[in-house]
Amino acid sequence: MAPPKAGLLSLNTATTRGRWGLAQAIEGCARHGIRGISPWRDLLHVMGVKQAARAIRAHALTVTGLCRGGMFPARDARTRKANIADNLRAIDEAQALGAQCLVLVVGGLPEGSKDIAGARAQVKDGIATILPQAKAAGIPLAIEPLHPMYAADRACVNTLSQALDLCDALDPKKTGALGVAVDVYHVWWDPQLEAQIRRAGKRRLLAYHICDWLVPTTDLLLDRGMMGDGVVDLKRIRGWMTRAGYRGLHEVEIFSANNWWTRDPDEVLATCKARHRWMS
Amino acid sequence: MAPPKAGLLSLNTATTRGRWGLAQAIEGCARHGIRGISPWRDLLHVMGVKQAARAIRAHALTVTGLCRGGMFPARDARTRKANIADNLRAIDEAQALGAQCLVLVVGGLPEGSKDIAGARAQVKDGIATILPQAKAAGIPLAIEPLHPMYAADRACVNTLSQALDLCDALDPKKTGALGVAVDVYHVWWDPQLEAQIRRAGKRRLLAYHICDWLVPTTDLLLDRGMMGDGVVDLKRIRGWMTRAGYRGLHEVEIFSANNWWTRDPDEVLATCKARHRWMS
Repeated sequence: MAPPKAGLLSLNTATTRGRWGLAQAIEGCARHGIRGISPWRDLLHVMGVKQAARAIRAHALTVTGLCRGGMFPARDARTRKANIADNLRAIDEAQALGAQCLVLVVGGLPEGSKDIAGARAQVKDGIATILPQAKAAGIPLAIEPLHPMYAADRACVNTLSQALDLCDALDPKKTGALGVAVDVYHVWWDPQLEAQIRRAGKRRLLAYHICDWLVPTTDLLLDRGMMGDGVVDLKRIRGWMTRAGYRGLHEVEIFSANNWWTRDPDEVLATCKARHRWMS
Repeated sequence: MAPPKAGLLSLNTATTRGRWGLAQAIEGCARHGIRGISPWRDLLHVMGVKQAARAIRAHALTVTGLCRGGMFPARDARTRKANIADNLRAIDEAQALGAQCLVLVVGGLPEGSKDIAGARAQVKDGIATILPQAKAAGIPLAIEPLHPMYAADRACVNTLSQALDLCDALDPKKTGALGVAVDVYHVWWDPQLEAQIRRAGKRRLLAYHICDWLVPTTDLLLDRGMMGDGVVDLKRIRGWMTRAGYRGLHEVEIFSANNWWTRDPDEVLATCKARHRWMS
């Protein structure tokens, strides 16, 4: 019997973190009729890139992204160089998986630094450095602006506008090699969101991540909500994405230590499907 | 003996919350040579507006702001009207204290709503409604953009740019009746911060609040840091404020349930003074 369809849904493996390895997540997607997957690299390394690529092909899953490259800023040149080398490995892995993009969480302030402008300059340099190899590999780089509450420790690119300024600077011809990942959790509050999605346009809208913002939110990192349980107007944002030309899958990425990570992943995937159908 | 000088420091009573009432905070400022105070209205109501005004005058303290008006959006017209009435009372209280401004924390989404654009429209209407009385009372309204992590439940104005757009719309002639409160905690991450401080200029920079952003931050609301303990480049931002024409005091506002609120407020004020001298 064919699995029930799950429309445009893709599963980011953060959603079943701690419960499923990558092989189980791939099987789970197949079992639930979910067409796409976005693996995190730690799980990918445990499974092995070749084995993962084979299993993903066997189930004809679309790899909506590889999480993640980035984390460019560092105090010293040696560490910055090591960070670049890790990004180049990530590009290779994304290519091996046939991923639609490599997601870049660009990194925050180096330890002890208060110089956010300097960190941003390092991010720009880092992306410029890896872009040629990404182009050669056919792997678009998707800059993911993270919520401003992560500016210090995870990503100093915090708005879509800022990410698109980087795209304009580093890929002015809009070749498709550099774009953005729009995660509603990070950008839902932005008064410029609609305008910046339009500005990005089809060529630069490389990934679309969904979940929800809970009220109250009890943890800065691990309290994301299931679609429909929070305040994000997912249908409206989806409409903006569609009108701007985005035709890709909708990747559900929920970090939720005290709720969804404690549940049976099969229940989580079933809930994702139902909520995506009705709320997103 | 005259108290030791505390330069441009002002004390927001949130910093000694739970330990000192307003009378104690006024006495504490006098004892520590702190020239300014910014009371929260709950403490003001406990002390009584007349008594507070008398004590503040007796110590020749500058009232750098009254916290707070705002909280405009609501589901129904009756509640919106009650919110307006409360703002008008706040304007009266600010006038009685001789406050330099009434700080507006504008409010978030009404319960059950996902319509942030609608909430923002309600905020604009609310400010427009109270502005004539604020002008008549000689109390400038200071819109405080809050960090985007508070967009849902506290304030849907989340950047200085957005606050200044409201100022342009409602007070296009820059009369000084409407401006902004710049709190480093809320805006430090903004790539446009320097440009928007410059845009605001002397007439619209009504208040300057300081503290620090800790890494890691363990609570969305009550884990602000003392100046120097976090990643905010306070000297740089102070320079931008000064170059834009700001000549007011620097109001320290620290919500800190597990650290500063547990300490003797005299120690807290002494620390504020020392850190302000060296770090800010």
